[in-house]
Amino acid sequence: MFTLHHHPFCPFSRTVRIAMGEYGMGAEFVEQRTWERRREFLEMNPANTLPVLLIGQAGRIVGLRPILEFLDETKGPSLGPRRMMPTDPYDKAEVRRLLDWFDDNFHGEVTQYLVREKIFKRFMRAEDGGGGPDTRLILAGTKNLKTHMAYISHLAVRRNWLGGDSFSYADVTAAAHLSCLDYLGDVPWDEYEQAKNWYARVKSRPSFRPLLVDQVPGMRPAASYVDLDF
Amino acid sequence: MFTLHHHPFCPFSRTVRIAMGEYGMGAEFVEQRTWERRREFLEMNPANTLPVLLIGQAGRIVGLRPILEFLDETKGPSLGPRRMMPTDPYDKAEVRRLLDWFDDNFHGEVTQYLVREKIFKRFMRAEDGGGGPDTRLILAGTKNLKTHMAYISHLAVRRNWLGGDSFSYADVTAAAHLSCLDYLGDVPWDEYEQAKNWYARVKSRPSFRPLLVDQVPGMRPAASYVDLDF
Repeated sequence: MFTLHHHPFCPFSRTVRIAMGEYGMGAEFVEQRTWERRREFLEMNPANTLPVLLIGQAGRIVGLRPILEFLDETKGPSLGPRRMMPTDPYDKAEVRRLLDWFDDNFHGEVTQYLVREKIFKRFMRAEDGGGGPDTRLILAGTKNLKTHMAYISHLAVRRNWLGGDSFSYADVTAAAHLSCLDYLGDVPWDEYEQAKNWYARVKSRPSFRPLLVDQVPGMRPAASYVDLDF
Repeated sequence: MFTLHHHPFCPFSRTVRIAMGEYGMGAEFVEQRTWERRREFLEMNPANTLPVLLIGQAGRIVGLRPILEFLDETKGPSLGPRRMMPTDPYDKAEVRRLLDWFDDNFHGEVTQYLVREKIFKRFMRAEDGGGGPDTRLILAGTKNLKTHMAYISHLAVRRNWLGGDSFSYADVTAAAHLSCLDYLGDVPWDEYEQAKNWYARVKSRPSFRPLLVDQVPGMRPAASYVDLDF
């Protein structure tokens, strides 16, 4: 029995949800709003980061990278050619480089600004940092997104999937970030056709579908969000 | 033939240097000052992060986590019981959780402030962010360090090494961060005896010695820095 502590619009949580879908894993989901700093969650993960995967009564895997590696180690071989982490050490290093790229750089320069300002702040109390969105941060995130879209296109032109020949965790994490921004209608798809074509292929996977059902209360998704032919 | 692009006071680079010492690997070292954003380094690693490990003519492993995982996969088994990544998937997850703890949380809340303000800024041009240290950031880093020292002590009391029974990458990365701060004389060792005893054990390893030779030009290390009985 798996339990995932997550947030529907946390890109790291979304990455794990897509990966679990690929592995065919069901789970119980517990929503965490980390800005509330709930004591019981801090005891589970003092870093106060999402996601956390609980396995049975005693197993606990904390954080995105540890979860992805754990799932690959314990379930990867069962996927055969659909395994999301390559087996060659150099190919693995490239997938891991891209995980860092999206989860550190892309997140720090884009997702964090746009998702926090436009979504999370709606649910934060003033003392937790809530309030109106900071338009300077939104502008910075929007500007940085263009650089990242160019890099995704650069990779998509040269490779079958972002990390190499096969669909990998690099595609999962990149698409998870973009899916949050796509909900907001913030992705300039038409300016980056190769990135768009790559994303359409990820979006059409069954593992991606559950994400498209999530809604921010009081905030409808952009028209392109659920459309597979956006 | 290995080449490590690094900086002597980059904690991520120091982690890899200690790990390479444990593996008995020699390397050529190339110092990078990432704030200069050198074109040839950006072509090697567009994320502009350290370290980058070059292997032979064509191999390139970018970033701390990819390098540590690569070295464990390719050289870990040769260390036998001294292997720095456990083999049990749950134990690995705990070591990886602590890597994230030190390289994300500890770095973001402590090392980044103190090392940047006190060391890196001395070598930065004004247009790259150089100048006098920002005392507010130094105070924040110094305050946050106490919380982290308490957590290290908490782990050191309960376990033989920080990540579990055996010396692991968790110890390597934690000690790498602390070694930068120790150079500055910023670690309140006497208030955290268990953390001090744990660090003394790491510091006495031969793999750690090369770090103690590094000096910041024009800035002598604190008296405790090279002393194994600090």
